[in-house]
Amino acid sequence: MNITRPTLILDEGKCRNNIQYMCEKAARLGVDLIPHFKTHQSEEIGKWFIEAGVDAITVSSVKMAQYFAKYGWKDITIAFPLNVLEIDSINEILHEGVRLKVLVVSAESIRLLINSLEGKVEVLIEVDAGYNRTGIATENSTEVRDIVGLINDSDKLDFYGLYCHPGNTYQTASTDDIKQIWADAILKVVELKDQLSDIAPGLKIRMGDTPGCTVVEDMAGIDEIGPGNFVFYDLVMNYLDVCNEDQIAVAVACPVVAKYPNRNQLIIHGGAVHFSKDHLYDGDENKFFGEVVIFNEGGWSPILDGIKLTSISQEHGILTATTEIIETIETGDVIGILPIHSCLTANLLKSYTTLDGSEISHLEKGF
Amino acid sequence: MNITRPTLILDEGKCRNNIQYMCEKAARLGVDLIPHFKTHQSEEIGKWFIEAGVDAITVSSVKMAQYFAKYGWKDITIAFPLNVLEIDSINEILHEGVRLKVLVVSAESIRLLINSLEGKVEVLIEVDAGYNRTGIATENSTEVRDIVGLINDSDKLDFYGLYCHPGNTYQTASTDDIKQIWADAILKVVELKDQLSDIAPGLKIRMGDTPGCTVVEDMAGIDEIGPGNFVFYDLVMNYLDVCNEDQIAVAVACPVVAKYPNRNQLIIHGGAVHFSKDHLYDGDENKFFGEVVIFNEGGWSPILDGIKLTSISQEHGILTATTEIIETIETGDVIGILPIHSCLTANLLKSYTTLDGSEISHLEKGF
Repeated sequence: MNITRPTLILDEGKCRNNIQYMCEKAARLGVDLIPHFKTHQSEEIGKWFIEAGVDAITVSSVKMAQYFAKYGWKDITIAFPLNVLEIDSINEILHEGVRLKVLVVSAESIRLLINSLEGKVEVLIEVDAGYNRTGIATENSTEVRDIVGLINDSDKLDFYGLYCHPGNTYQTASTDDIKQIWADAILKVVELKDQLSDIAPGLKIRMGDTPGCTVVEDMAGIDEIGPGNFVFYDLVMNYLDVCNEDQIAVAVACPVVAKYPNRNQLIIHGGAVHFSKDHLYDGDENKFFGEVVIFNEGGWSPILDGIKLTSISQEHGILTATTEIIETIETGDVIGILPIHSCLTANLLKSYTTLDGSEISHLEKGF
Repeated sequence: MNITRPTLILDEGKCRNNIQYMCEKAARLGVDLIPHFKTHQSEEIGKWFIEAGVDAITVSSVKMAQYFAKYGWKDITIAFPLNVLEIDSINEILHEGVRLKVLVVSAESIRLLINSLEGKVEVLIEVDAGYNRTGIATENSTEVRDIVGLINDSDKLDFYGLYCHPGNTYQTASTDDIKQIWADAILKVVELKDQLSDIAPGLKIRMGDTPGCTVVEDMAGIDEIGPGNFVFYDLVMNYLDVCNEDQIAVAVACPVVAKYPNRNQLIIHGGAVHFSKDHLYDGDENKFFGEVVIFNEGGWSPILDGIKLTSISQEHGILTATTEIIETIETGDVIGILPIHSCLTANLLKSYTTLDGSEISHLEKGF
């Protein structure tokens, strides 16, 4: 590889293993995997999912649905509260013959949707089991019933099921906490399902989030899972003990442009326009923006001890390191940074380079 | 305007006023304005600078230099430590007849540069007056002298001057602190210049950063300034008291997609893929990711009291607001968010829509 500027390197083997792992887990637990494509946003990586047997996907925006529809996907869930202002784009997708599922969080948007829809869509009601971002509280079965009633009354809408993204798993201290959040959420959503059995006998339950989908083994009651981040994983997942570092499938190659041994720092070309501003804290509560690896024949090394990306501005990254490590890295070297948050990093870098030097596209590149 | 999804709105009048203000200030203080184009990254906004009399610019990457060279700019400073791995692109820019200035922070990169350069470049030595990011410490005059010597010995290089970006102005508590940082930095850089007078009699001093360039009135000793953010300003600048909120020239139009009056929250389509993850803290030390304005005939309202963007994930934004404000905003409304950091927001949204609905391009869109 001839790297001259910040470049997102993708280890295809690790990525395909991650896909395979989640497909096998879903099959083993008897749930359908409807993977979320917001992390990779790539039609080519989408093909690796097709090869693994996936035919229905989740996205987080209408734009992303348009992109994957263009590349032939025929079963797409837009897992973001329905924005009726985008109805023209939604109708366009329907006209392309896509089986479209939308997420609804209020009766009001159902009414607006019915008025302007030029085809038939399936509706998932998003419910909230305690994350407090979007969705109707699972306790509020009356509101959910009312919405199911509106859907059942419309010949443009089919009620598909309940969608729950327990994203509070990202704020946990252990994988046991993640399992507990899921157990609670499943209990609540299944209870809600039971309360709807008279008006929605065949409804499906879909649960999201990579932490839960990776570590939870008891998925009784759930029909579908929709994780996204697992395709690459990242340091957030690694620090949550959800993945091992060798499952992280992306690293940003960054040229070293300056050395300051007197203050134990190196400067790389790699900043907020490559990594966003997500961060984690090390054992001493020091903020950091990435871990360092060294590229080698087969990909990259384990994470180096004694060096971290400790500060970023728009294009600059500052690495703070021990004297021993500083001595091994020179201006002009290209080092690897494992990202804190792979979704945002991929969204910023807009294309992937595999270990053999092939380029793989990303939605944001020219769509 | 027909806004259906997150869209970066540009108030051309405010932007042109910001450009005019900085041009007039530079003229009044007798310094040359070499504006930094990393904030807007737009050839069309570049033309507004031409109309204001600017003919030399600063950029923060070789990619950005290639972009502006393509659109006819002939005097470009790449204000990022020279990355010799990008020499092929640098040579291409030279072959297009650009008067190129590069930033150097070590003798080593001078040697590498001389070996592979296919034309003539001017060199600025970056010096560090206390910010501790990049550059040679101003106290280290011996190292600077050595580099000037190497430059003077090469027929491919011309020594242009000293570049100092006192970015620690971003961490100040008052505009007096900003002025003090600049006064200290000017003193140090001018002293260094005096020490080089025998080998570099005509060297120029360029200082960067929008906070300093906006508030400092005493620029004696400086030849050039290179601020960037001032073209739009943002909440960081507003919270530093560097600009008034009515000088902020960009706002992101975001559709409201859900309301949760019971917890005083609204959900917008507008998240980390639109705003990055920069944040500020309010008077009670609560983190927030943007302020809210309402679009109107002439642009947008003053910042609303009692509502802030308090949390963001990839596509979702959570607004926390008083009951009174919640009652005035409905699902399907489009509200405005003033960004914390306009450079990163523009880099993510990749195009501008002016108040009359025209689209203005950004480098990241298809370059």
